[in-house]
Amino acid sequence: MYDVAIIGSGPAGYSAGIYSSRYQLKTIIFGKMMGGTMSEAHKVCNYPGIKDITGIDLSTQMSEHAQTNGCEIRFESIANVEKHGDTFLLTNNRGNSYKAKTVLLTTGTERSKLTIPNEDKYLGKGLSYCATCDGNFYKDKIVCVIGGSSAATMAAMMLSDIAKEVYIIYRGTELKGDPVWKKQAENKENIHVILETVVVGLEGDEKLSSIKLSREYKGSNILNTDGLFIEIGSEPNDDLPLKMGIETDDKGYLIVNQAQRTNIDGIWAAGDCTTNSNGFRQVVTATSEGAIASNDIYQYLKSRS
Amino acid sequence: MYDVAIIGSGPAGYSAGIYSSRYQLKTIIFGKMMGGTMSEAHKVCNYPGIKDITGIDLSTQMSEHAQTNGCEIRFESIANVEKHGDTFLLTNNRGNSYKAKTVLLTTGTERSKLTIPNEDKYLGKGLSYCATCDGNFYKDKIVCVIGGSSAATMAAMMLSDIAKEVYIIYRGTELKGDPVWKKQAENKENIHVILETVVVGLEGDEKLSSIKLSREYKGSNILNTDGLFIEIGSEPNDDLPLKMGIETDDKGYLIVNQAQRTNIDGIWAAGDCTTNSNGFRQVVTATSEGAIASNDIYQYLKSRS
Repeated sequence: MYDVAIIGSGPAGYSAGIYSSRYQLKTIIFGKMMGGTMSEAHKVCNYPGIKDITGIDLSTQMSEHAQTNGCEIRFESIANVEKHGDTFLLTNNRGNSYKAKTVLLTTGTERSKLTIPNEDKYLGKGLSYCATCDGNFYKDKIVCVIGGSSAATMAAMMLSDIAKEVYIIYRGTELKGDPVWKKQAENKENIHVILETVVVGLEGDEKLSSIKLSREYKGSNILNTDGLFIEIGSEPNDDLPLKMGIETDDKGYLIVNQAQRTNIDGIWAAGDCTTNSNGFRQVVTATSEGAIASNDIYQYLKSRS
Repeated sequence: MYDVAIIGSGPAGYSAGIYSSRYQLKTIIFGKMMGGTMSEAHKVCNYPGIKDITGIDLSTQMSEHAQTNGCEIRFESIANVEKHGDTFLLTNNRGNSYKAKTVLLTTGTERSKLTIPNEDKYLGKGLSYCATCDGNFYKDKIVCVIGGSSAATMAAMMLSDIAKEVYIIYRGTELKGDPVWKKQAENKENIHVILETVVVGLEGDEKLSSIKLSREYKGSNILNTDGLFIEIGSEPNDDLPLKMGIETDDKGYLIVNQAQRTNIDGIWAAGDCTTNSNGFRQVVTATSEGAIASNDIYQYLKSRS
């Protein structure tokens, strides 16, 4: 019987793992991927106190930090959570079960898809949702990045050090997001920004070889490319939370109060998947929500013991 | 003319300095002491990703992180803030003035006093509010710590490695706070816990030499001691905010919304001095509030330019 079962191994989950373990609560984290979305960051430069670190290294440090304090971590997917009296029964996708007194959902977000024909067909064959993971396959090649956010611009910057030419394709009239990245991208010689344009088709035999644009760029609406990186935002991972009966807002984010409690007694949520932190989704906001949830879980369990 | 003037140099202020500077906003931090309350922490073991660091080192790292991104830092006390149209005029205690478009208050909290006779008389002469700062003066001596919180127990643990004997004097029936520190303190040979007792008097010629207890301990209500560390919590630093007309709750914490905005247009607040983060006051919650405030300030300024 665990005191706290944390579902999700991103910064919110690790922070909660650190705090809960330091409260001497028996704590387990279930995760699909070490660090979650954070692990895909080429660089994290805005986590206060650490000037410059890869997402993977920061994930590793947080994971070790939680384990040092006694937190257990298992890379298993939780498929179902049922409440039996005061106890939660968690079942993974192999049918194994775990019991816990409280549950903390730190399930994060998943990247949005373009939803155009053949998007799934070319996945891993020229099409990617993660520049950090796949960028190195495109040395001296031509690549396109779709999107205009900080994440898209940052991905383009990273790719511009590897690939020969990088095209940013964005439907808006100017790049959005962090002006530091925007300015750097606009000044980089091998980055070309194509605005007010969307991708309407994907072409290629075995692998992606060209994309079709909604309007002409330099005399053609066909752009030859070796790789396509889709960086158009993300959506909360709420399949499991919805199955559990957790209330969400109209965009699917889990509704929590200031103590990170959901509508179900004994279930908290923290990190990118929630409605807190004014919708600002950063490593530092996720870790803060995880800490706040742990503090409230500790008080909740102590008041019942 | 600064885009953002941050008043307070703790983790909330530094985080806001990092984020605001990365948004290319002209940012200045005014502080009394590098790191604020964080700098007094003997050890910070719960800032996710950094297992074990002194408060002073973490303060230094955050300060350097902000400056690397272009943030200016001045160790000056701001005595007055006035609004003239859309501009704030900040005046320091030497009469020098600065102009800023927005103000972020990260003024933190101040340690509570015992409020018994001669408390001020013995300050720096055996009496201290900061074990980290003054602990090393008590090598092989006898010291007392007043309080039962994590901060008090942690201070006692730290002192027990320096002093000969450490007494924890607490009015409650058992030590509170982080069970990790509590357990460690109770197991430490040279730490003695005196419960359900308060200090009612301070004695000594030039320096503090004994304290008077509200009831007998081992046959006497006089306890000889070389040092007394007062660790009984803290209160928000709201002299300046109150003067500026910022609304507070009944304990003096600055009322903010989810975007960290105060009741006055153009003024935000973040960190230990606010009502956010469910009242959980940690380095990680302060840095998060500072980041959220900066994001909202950036959007506010952009929408007006």
